[in-house]
Amino acid sequence: MKKALIVGATGFGGIGLIDIISRHPGLEIAGLVALDHGKKISDLYPHLKGICDLPVCSPDEMQIDNIDIAFFSTPDRAGMQLIKKFTDKGIPVIDFSGDFRFNSLKDYELYAANKSMDINHYEPSLLPEAVYGLPEKFSEEIKKAKIVGNPGCFAITMILALLPAIEKNLIASETIFCDGKTGVSGAGVNPGRANSYPLRYENTNTYREGTHQHLVEVENILNRFSSENKKILFVPQIVPMNRGILVSMYGDPKEKLTTDEIIEIYTLYYKNSPFVAISKNSISTADVRGTNRCIIRPAIDKRTGKFFICAAIDNLMKGQSGNAVQNANIILGFEETTGLMLNPMFP
Amino acid sequence: MKKALIVGATGFGGIGLIDIISRHPGLEIAGLVALDHGKKISDLYPHLKGICDLPVCSPDEMQIDNIDIAFFSTPDRAGMQLIKKFTDKGIPVIDFSGDFRFNSLKDYELYAANKSMDINHYEPSLLPEAVYGLPEKFSEEIKKAKIVGNPGCFAITMILALLPAIEKNLIASETIFCDGKTGVSGAGVNPGRANSYPLRYENTNTYREGTHQHLVEVENILNRFSSENKKILFVPQIVPMNRGILVSMYGDPKEKLTTDEIIEIYTLYYKNSPFVAISKNSISTADVRGTNRCIIRPAIDKRTGKFFICAAIDNLMKGQSGNAVQNANIILGFEETTGLMLNPMFP
Amino acid sequence: MKKALIVGATGFGGIGLIDIISRHPGLEIAGLVALDHGKKISDLYPHLKGICDLPVCSPDEMQIDNIDIAFFSTPDRAGMQLIKKFTDKGIPVIDFSGDFRFNSLKDYELYAANKSMDINHYEPSLLPEAVYGLPEKFSEEIKKAKIVGNPGCFAITMILALLPAIEKNLIASETIFCDGKTGVSGAGVNPGRANSYPLRYENTNTYREGTHQHLVEVENILNRFSSENKKILFVPQIVPMNRGILVSMYGDPKEKLTTDEIIEIYTLYYKNSPFVAISKNSISTADVRGTNRCIIRPAIDKRTGKFFICAAIDNLMKGQSGNAVQNANIILGFEETTGLMLNPMFP
Amino acid sequence: MKKALIVGATGFGGIGLIDIISRHPGLEIAGLVALDHGKKISDLYPHLKGICDLPVCSPDEMQIDNIDIAFFSTPDRAGMQLIKKFTDKGIPVIDFSGDFRFNSLKDYELYAANKSMDINHYEPSLLPEAVYGLPEKFSEEIKKAKIVGNPGCFAITMILALLPAIEKNLIASETIFCDGKTGVSGAGVNPGRANSYPLRYENTNTYREGTHQHLVEVENILNRFSSENKKILFVPQIVPMNRGILVSMYGDPKEKLTTDEIIEIYTLYYKNSPFVAISKNSISTADVRGTNRCIIRPAIDKRTGKFFICAAIDNLMKGQSGNAVQNANIILGFEETTGLMLNPMFP
Repeated sequence: MKKALIVGATGFGGIGLIDIISRHPGLEIAGLVALDHGKKISDLYPHLKGICDLPVCSPDEMQIDNIDIAFFSTPDRAGMQLIKKFTDKGIPVIDFSGDFRFNSLKDYELYAANKSMDINHYEPSLLPEAVYGLPEKFSEEIKKAKIVGNPGCFAITMILALLPAIEKNLIASETIFCDGKTGVSGAGVNPGRANSYPLRYENTNTYREGTHQHLVEVENILNRFSSENKKILFVPQIVPMNRGILVSMYGDPKEKLTTDEIIEIYTLYYKNSPFVAISKNSISTADVRGTNRCIIRPAIDKRTGKFFICAAIDNLMKGQSGNAVQNANIILGFEETTGLMLNPMFP
Repeated sequence: MKKALIVGATGFGGIGLIDIISRHPGLEIAGLVALDHGKKISDLYPHLKGICDLPVCSPDEMQIDNIDIAFFSTPDRAGMQLIKKFTDKGIPVIDFSGDFRFNSLKDYELYAANKSMDINHYEPSLLPEAVYGLPEKFSEEIKKAKIVGNPGCFAITMILALLPAIEKNLIASETIFCDGKTGVSGAGVNPGRANSYPLRYENTNTYREGTHQHLVEVENILNRFSSENKKILFVPQIVPMNRGILVSMYGDPKEKLTTDEIIEIYTLYYKNSPFVAISKNSISTADVRGTNRCIIRPAIDKRTGKFFICAAIDNLMKGQSGNAVQNANIILGFEETTGLMLNPMFP
Repeated sequence: MKKALIVGATGFGGIGLIDIISRHPGLEIAGLVALDHGKKISDLYPHLKGICDLPVCSPDEMQIDNIDIAFFSTPDRAGMQLIKKFTDKGIPVIDFSGDFRFNSLKDYELYAANKSMDINHYEPSLLPEAVYGLPEKFSEEIKKAKIVGNPGCFAITMILALLPAIEKNLIASETIFCDGKTGVSGAGVNPGRANSYPLRYENTNTYREGTHQHLVEVENILNRFSSENKKILFVPQIVPMNRGILVSMYGDPKEKLTTDEIIEIYTLYYKNSPFVAISKNSISTADVRGTNRCIIRPAIDKRTGKFFICAAIDNLMKGQSGNAVQNANIILGFEETTGLMLNPMFP
Repeated sequence: MKKALIVGATGFGGIGLIDIISRHPGLEIAGLVALDHGKKISDLYPHLKGICDLPVCSPDEMQIDNIDIAFFSTPDRAGMQLIKKFTDKGIPVIDFSGDFRFNSLKDYELYAANKSMDINHYEPSLLPEAVYGLPEKFSEEIKKAKIVGNPGCFAITMILALLPAIEKNLIASETIFCDGKTGVSGAGVNPGRANSYPLRYENTNTYREGTHQHLVEVENILNRFSSENKKILFVPQIVPMNRGILVSMYGDPKEKLTTDEIIEIYTLYYKNSPFVAISKNSISTADVRGTNRCIIRPAIDKRTGKFFICAAIDNLMKGQSGNAVQNANIILGFEETTGLMLNPMFP
């Protein structure tokens, strides 16, 4: 059994990892680390009783000997302060924040500015070594990575949905609009107005219109596969559900195409991606609830001839912990799908 | 007191009308008509006890003498079978369905085909007399109307949000994308998969992508105010809330404009529309819950220079019963806002 | 117009008062006070735009001249620090916390201990003058009160539901069980685990089983009308909705009674209480949503002969701001129902 | 691999079975049968794509050769018409309805009358052979059973929670009150008012107060283990969530006991029951979401000395399909927990 350390164990990313790893045939949890330490994880989260009863220790107490992989399910700017300890020992790290989603300091600074954070990176020298944790595209790099920057939940949805059209040069530059809807769990476990029940129930609202921080990584990745420098207008919305992301994307096709042709192109593109499914039908977040799947529906609107692409994921799985374990599987030499062939919770 | 008859009293439209009219200082309910007749409305809906305890009678039993106005909060193809009785006596009718939203038979047939209904209209000769019930634009026509076709909930949101840009020729033809989110009550009171709690909770899904029936009236009305024949790609989505519509709209500006300039144009455009508010901030459906308001936020995205317009209504109020009473106020000579200055239910 | 000051204006109690008073024909808001001061209330809560755009000032800045009544929609232990300023000037105060729900220091200390708070009262000398704000029972005292302690939301539900049975000596001492269900808004506006969307959605849980602080006032008031010293087992539960309280109460009848007889007794008991309705049917919180009503269904179970009483309120209305305005109406000489005859929001 | 037939495959019971059996190491689905036949199950429920793509056939087409076990996840009165075909061939049947929860015709008739159904049983001669599917108590009988009547969801919760107290004679006869809360999925997949989103959101209501049909089996089973003939007052309530049951139970202890002593008795009683957990803390349905667990918290209220027992299950798992597979495991010779050690979905 390979041994995993979870730093940031008490957030939704952490308990998602505990959930998945507790069922993983080749991976086990060696330790839990978090700032709110001192109790057993199952005292903080009673649903974990009998599943994981390890104590949560402080960053100062953490033991990193004999660790095969470390997950940093930590907020922005936490992982970059700890990562040296791991990379120095050759322990691969998968970081959930934006700290290592970029290879250039300039991109990080843009990202940090969008989130109104301090833009100084603690370990800029490690940035060039970081690999963007998109297994559908970068599995070779991930295999050898010291540091994987696990993608943002909205970002991975948009990238998976747009990549085939962009790489195949099917969609016109500067015409892409992305309209995102996310469940409330995307705001994390720490209580605030963004995840307040009274303020969120029966409410759909826009936020960070055109300025969401995930745009930086989306454009960054898409432009690696495009000769044009695409700029996307992305408007996120919060809807009153807990889990789930659905993004609807629009644009102008570069050539006349039918829905069937697009479906074929997408299906071929993802033929070796076990978690990506191409659909001809309406997309529901309920169909991916609790799974690591991404369902994509690419289409051409008959009346207008426009591109319409819709994609759905579970933001806590393919948008967070599930994708992280998929990356870990690749690094550790497991089948990509190990521990991740989960059924949707329905209804 | 003016007397109103409510045909289709037992659906959400009907109980919305009862709610509003019971508080209206100049209007009272003369009778309730519905297919599921034979009981008092407050036996069917106990929350109405003490507010309205009238019996629900059948269409055969309905009394139309001494009626000043009739609301047909009925499904498609019901109103067109009864309306002659009213128009022959000079009683104005406000119909909630698509039966009288169009002046041409061709438009109706397109609408009906989109809903997979019988496309034959029972009273085609009345269509030219029908007025589209958008008080912000057609109050003069509504004042004298025999028949008002109350707009669809998505349609009124998109029309109010796009009209200023289109009429002022600010937005490029053929570039408009509309992404709609609606609460479940839009599917009406009759139980089905679309309003099933287990299938709707924790679920956001697309439906009728590019083919929603409201598109017909949206393009119909917008093109009256445009020299170009606009075709719009509209993708509706259902989100797990009961009330509320939020539509995000995207497109290319025809000239370089700033958000401030657009805000000014919109504010001026709606300066005499008491229920339309122009906002500079993020839009939430919670802010219009239970009110007849429409909040619109027009903006230019700084990074891409694209148009972004967002609008929110309560689909059961400005999207249905509230707008219908606004129309009735105009017809009956009341102030447009009478009985409709309602506070949002918050939280 | 009488003038009201709202201290604690930015919580749910405060915005509930603003909502009601903005529609009240005889009362207007003279000022808003809160710790998070410095902005207009409609900047904090955009749904109030055009309804109330007053600034929120700090306790230090508050003006109390020309005030006819003060609402302290403040947390425990805030009102007791400010109240002297008002009582010294003869301004009646309605306090929403437990600070003035008791006439004896001992009861307050018990209440405070249940909430794990400091048990020292700042103004013990004012306690004997405080009147429990239950208009259905103490309207004469409220009329002349300097200080009204507005009841707890669970407390008022249980008291209204049990009083007739207890005062008429119909229910056996020591056999009463109360099982309560509350919506999440009862936990207030300040973000915490109790009102976290991800932790509350799809979750029903018990809390403070047998030790809820409202028990002190429930037993206190009930025992004023009973020769026996009743002790009640009350188990509260949080259910995933925003507004609404439903309490089911059980016990042994002292004599053989039928449901019809009980209904008659309850109906007579509340014949002059405009907000209390006695029902023969199943009780739904949806039927009181947004209203000041309390619906009570007293019954005898045919199979077991046991008492079953169920009651429902909107916790933010009859359980908080609505009841407070009802008390204010009594103090200020308005009809008890002024500004409070509100329709339920349905659906 | 043992082969299972699922009759009634398209309801929540059926798709729950498909979910569990698709992950079961020793059981596979041989066929799906339902009245709405003719399509693949994954066309009806797209979330099952890749998990189960079998066609749904009609009862007339069903193949029962080579079947090792049949699940009838059918409504009342459906299984009793088909069961002979299976029992004649020695194929064990697990029925989800009330058809075979009783050994006496009189009990069935009482149950059927409570549900306002036809009270005539089609196969009364099979009733004495039916075993009540409570594995925690009747595993020996289940092992050899031809017909297992899978318990009702409320019933199994109350029985598991009350049995230790009743069998050990700790709780006074005629003093038990049960207050139940269920999620909406308990009303099944067929659309109706009981599972209508607009009527269920933001609503908690009582129903069938004192007359719920599960009472018959609860009293029936409890009284097998009691010298007294207990009659229980049970009031069910629907709360706005999809999955989950929480029942709070109250009564008088027969002797003076502490919570610690009760906890010890319960823990001992269920020491061999892998799915029953005894807790000292507040109970949440979220902690059992998606699992076959039942968490029970027995307690003595310190102030009143009364019994308080709370229990939670996932109504679609331990209350339906999970418990059915547990019964199937016993019949087919698997470990009781095979395929059922599932993690809660959290958050």
